[in-house]
Amino acid sequence: MSGRIEARLAELAIELPSPPAPVAAYVPYVQTGNLIFISGQVSFLGEDRSSTGKVGADLSPEAGKAAARNAALNTLAHLKNACGGNLDRITRCVSLRIYVASAPDFTGQPGVGNGASELVGEIFGNLGKHARAAVGVTALPLNCAVEVESVWEID
Amino acid sequence: MSGRIEARLAELAIELPSPPAPVAAYVPYVQTGNLIFISGQVSFLGEDRSSTGKVGADLSPEAGKAAARNAALNTLAHLKNACGGNLDRITRCVSLRIYVASAPDFTGQPGVGNGASELVGEIFGNLGKHARAAVGVTALPLNCAVEVESVWEID
Amino acid sequence: MSGRIEARLAELAIELPSPPAPVAAYVPYVQTGNLIFISGQVSFLGEDRSSTGKVGADLSPEAGKAAARNAALNTLAHLKNACGGNLDRITRCVSLRIYVASAPDFTGQPGVGNGASELVGEIFGNLGKHARAAVGVTALPLNCAVEVESVWEID
Repeated sequence: MSGRIEARLAELAIELPSPPAPVAAYVPYVQTGNLIFISGQVSFLGEDRSSTGKVGADLSPEAGKAAARNAALNTLAHLKNACGGNLDRITRCVSLRIYVASAPDFTGQPGVGNGASELVGEIFGNLGKHARAAVGVTALPLNCAVEVESVWEID
Repeated sequence: MSGRIEARLAELAIELPSPPAPVAAYVPYVQTGNLIFISGQVSFLGEDRSSTGKVGADLSPEAGKAAARNAALNTLAHLKNACGGNLDRITRCVSLRIYVASAPDFTGQPGVGNGASELVGEIFGNLGKHARAAVGVTALPLNCAVEVESVWEID
Repeated sequence: MSGRIEARLAELAIELPSPPAPVAAYVPYVQTGNLIFISGQVSFLGEDRSSTGKVGADLSPEAGKAAARNAALNTLAHLKNACGGNLDRITRCVSLRIYVASAPDFTGQPGVGNGASELVGEIFGNLGKHARAAVGVTALPLNCAVEVESVWEID
């Protein structure tokens, strides 16, 4: 609990959740070389499943943005495990892919995705500047509103 | 036909299909460093196009899971070529991305994706443990039900 | 403006657009090792936003293919920056992911994606042969018709 990133988390009053168990036959992350691929993380935070449904119909864009932040928090919880508990080993957030369960006429996926992107930026600073794609999909696992898939570089 | 993975395929009575030709202007796989990127594979197996339509409307979740298994079989057929015929050279399944053509209210993408994930686990054991994302999309090429995109690590 | 790829662009009478600014809190590209991840690029070209809506409903497949080409042009504009202005440093197009905003019954995503794939092939030749996935999604940022996400290998 002493590293630079842990200090930043404390400064931001951000507590990482327990990393959620995969909901199917896969693992939360794989490291290959100095890249870590994190499995798609849903937007439920612990028992809180309020981010359910489609943005633009069941959820407001603001609620969608909060859902993306939650998916990023779950991502970071797994990333910490992938680093052996030391997030200071992360040398770059390479890419985030933001899937937004969307009403057919909702096109504000970039704003929703910022819930994840801004969190990563607040915590990691320059090392958090990432490539990104945000797309609107039909439906997501467990009817969650946002899923975030990511790739990270480790020392 | 003598390797460890070939023996496992025989034990499981799994025969890989002929690798399907790309349906457009790209190639089935690219290797960069020790990563192999396999193009999105559809769920048709040879002439069998029964896995057509959207899961939750035209197909049951079980049929969707079988479709995902087919897409994984097509993936492995290309992967074998990418390895020069020797699947023992694969040191890790890094990630699977499962696109499920979904009715708007179908949220069982994780169970569908298991058709691919479980096959990879049965064949590769610990080396088959992969990161994954499963999402529900509007429509897929040729009206197939499932498409699987993947990244693998080779020695 | 003297390299091999620049000469090929001139031969094809292709002028790269100004690289569009990200529409949210991320950067256009990240390099890790010898891979460059380019953020999802939309199909608007400068002020031209005619590629709006869903292919199969608001746009014809041909207009969708043109939109994919535009998204690839925006991709190349950022890629050129990522190479310090010298596209000859690119040793391979690794993968393109083509998201097509699609009417529910539109399944011609491969033909749409060819608008991007063929452009990359024309410019880069054998080095442009890439892995690919094309999927139909519900909606895309700014209501654009096509978004292209890509990975490239640099020397």
